[in-house]
Amino acid sequence: MPNNKNAYPQFPFDATKVIIYGGGGLSKMIIEAVRVQGVYQIVGVIDDNLKKGDEIIGSPVLGGADVLGDLFNQGIRTAVNSVGGISDYKVRLEVFQKLAKAGFISPVIVHPTAHVDPSARLDAGVLVLAQSYISGNAKIGMGTLINNSVVISHDCILGVCTNFSPGAMIAGDATVGDFTQVGMNATINIGLHVGTECLIGNGATVKKDVPDGTRIYAGQIWPPFQTKKDRIV
Amino acid sequence: MPNNKNAYPQFPFDATKVIIYGGGGLSKMIIEAVRVQGVYQIVGVIDDNLKKGDEIIGSPVLGGADVLGDLFNQGIRTAVNSVGGISDYKVRLEVFQKLAKAGFISPVIVHPTAHVDPSARLDAGVLVLAQSYISGNAKIGMGTLINNSVVISHDCILGVCTNFSPGAMIAGDATVGDFTQVGMNATINIGLHVGTECLIGNGATVKKDVPDGTRIYAGQIWPPFQTKKDRIV
Amino acid sequence: MPNNKNAYPQFPFDATKVIIYGGGGLSKMIIEAVRVQGVYQIVGVIDDNLKKGDEIIGSPVLGGADVLGDLFNQGIRTAVNSVGGISDYKVRLEVFQKLAKAGFISPVIVHPTAHVDPSARLDAGVLVLAQSYISGNAKIGMGTLINNSVVISHDCILGVCTNFSPGAMIAGDATVGDFTQVGMNATINIGLHVGTECLIGNGATVKKDVPDGTRIYAGQIWPPFQTKKDRIV
Repeated sequence: MPNNKNAYPQFPFDATKVIIYGGGGLSKMIIEAVRVQGVYQIVGVIDDNLKKGDEIIGSPVLGGADVLGDLFNQGIRTAVNSVGGISDYKVRLEVFQKLAKAGFISPVIVHPTAHVDPSARLDAGVLVLAQSYISGNAKIGMGTLINNSVVISHDCILGVCTNFSPGAMIAGDATVGDFTQVGMNATINIGLHVGTECLIGNGATVKKDVPDGTRIYAGQIWPPFQTKKDRIV
Repeated sequence: MPNNKNAYPQFPFDATKVIIYGGGGLSKMIIEAVRVQGVYQIVGVIDDNLKKGDEIIGSPVLGGADVLGDLFNQGIRTAVNSVGGISDYKVRLEVFQKLAKAGFISPVIVHPTAHVDPSARLDAGVLVLAQSYISGNAKIGMGTLINNSVVISHDCILGVCTNFSPGAMIAGDATVGDFTQVGMNATINIGLHVGTECLIGNGATVKKDVPDGTRIYAGQIWPPFQTKKDRIV
Repeated sequence: MPNNKNAYPQFPFDATKVIIYGGGGLSKMIIEAVRVQGVYQIVGVIDDNLKKGDEIIGSPVLGGADVLGDLFNQGIRTAVNSVGGISDYKVRLEVFQKLAKAGFISPVIVHPTAHVDPSARLDAGVLVLAQSYISGNAKIGMGTLINNSVVISHDCILGVCTNFSPGAMIAGDATVGDFTQVGMNATINIGLHVGTECLIGNGATVKKDVPDGTRIYAGQIWPPFQTKKDRIV
């Protein structure tokens, strides 16, 4: 009997509703991706620095982090983290921690023009934006942001909250540590290990392993000094 | 009554037919994009330098600009400008002016593998070719040519007849002036202003604002001279 | 009469079954592409260096080249070459020769997120992986591997077993000789001729013709020495 509450499990949340945490520029790409993915309805945007009643391309600002409790009580349990953390990579992690503490989970969002091979594994909170590709057997760590037209090749392992800017390409069998950011159209060669908390600038060409915390400037070749003999194609 | 001409508005043109203006190499990409978009039937190609009766991948050459009047009288009002203007950027604008004067409008063409976010705005004559992406709240000026695998990120504002070559990436909140051309796999960083009539070469890495009329050579980093202290990731 | 064997031609092979030759990292991308293309069922993987009974993302290893005869006798005639040959470009050709000798043909594989214009021509064994684009009137030689997010522009002519890594971009009217390998996010300018057996590194910027056998290092601009006067955008 459909009216008998005991006939099937009762879930205390609305599986179709989502909030967007963070109302900066990146949120416009995320909101569009969530809408076109066609799975979730966006209730609104949470941002401590925006006014309640403002809107981001048609989605209302609901307030700051202080409204998370109310939303939880309304049965909302799903939140997309749209804080990119380009200038301060730990901010993105802090948002995930705040959301988890408030009882929210972060789904994977994959834009319909992106493609994730079935043998790849994406942890919670991973975003794969338009035109990107995650290849066979790749493993993508919690909260990683794969921006547009990125390629993560076969067997790559990416850490927590790594960030790949548009056009970044990483060849097969490479590993990238937590919080590392890879700039637009940068390349990382096959089988390399890039450490944690690295900043790889736009257009950089990475040919050898990169130690933790390294900063590679935009347009540079890594390693920085090479005699002709050392050069690697 | 369907046979009563006054029962509904009469339009003096055929909404499904289009001509392609310009029969150079670029026109092959444009013709394929128009065909696969599935909206317009291509009547033929207009090109002063080709012979009537020639064909471009199966579409007939109809003649030069002198046949525009005849086509107008046949009820054709829609023309796609396939003159790229890579070597002489003003040529593309002149074609739009010629078409407008002859009574033709230029539609937006978006390849089915490209994606334009609904919150973006495209002016007349904008072409978005295969695998490209125009992000949330971007504004693309009249006649701009977005070639393959280009990313125009959130909130970017592009001028009239700008030209983005394959793989060019522009981060969010950037502006690009009229007629500026951006080379293959070049990158423009977040929030920058690139002036009018700039030429940015293939693989260039743009890290600071670019004044009007600047030429940045292929593979170069902009700005060109940097002490270590000035470097920006 | 359907039971009359003479009523229609009898083919001695199973048109839906395919084997994958080569079980290295690249094979994971190829296997995923074949599966999602939805045309062929993968019988298994052939690799002299893997153990029979191993599996590659769910597809069983059948043995080495010595089992090709058995497979042929079972009616299997179609084989996808997933040996990339990045470090030794002739290996990929040798696999095609071995397959042909054993009576196998190599189909074209195009990932559903890739796009090949109808006026382009692909020879046997060409692979076009996720997010790539082959433009109007291009001609792609036997066995060429177009990896992810590659653009081959209009009228390009590529030789036998060329290899384009993720994000490589080649402008219109260019030609590339047999066995040449083009690195990730490298660019080749419009109308250039690149010779045979060239190695073009990741992020390289090619502005002039490249003689046969040339090696261009990662991140370099070609030609290598330029006075200001010689520079080309």
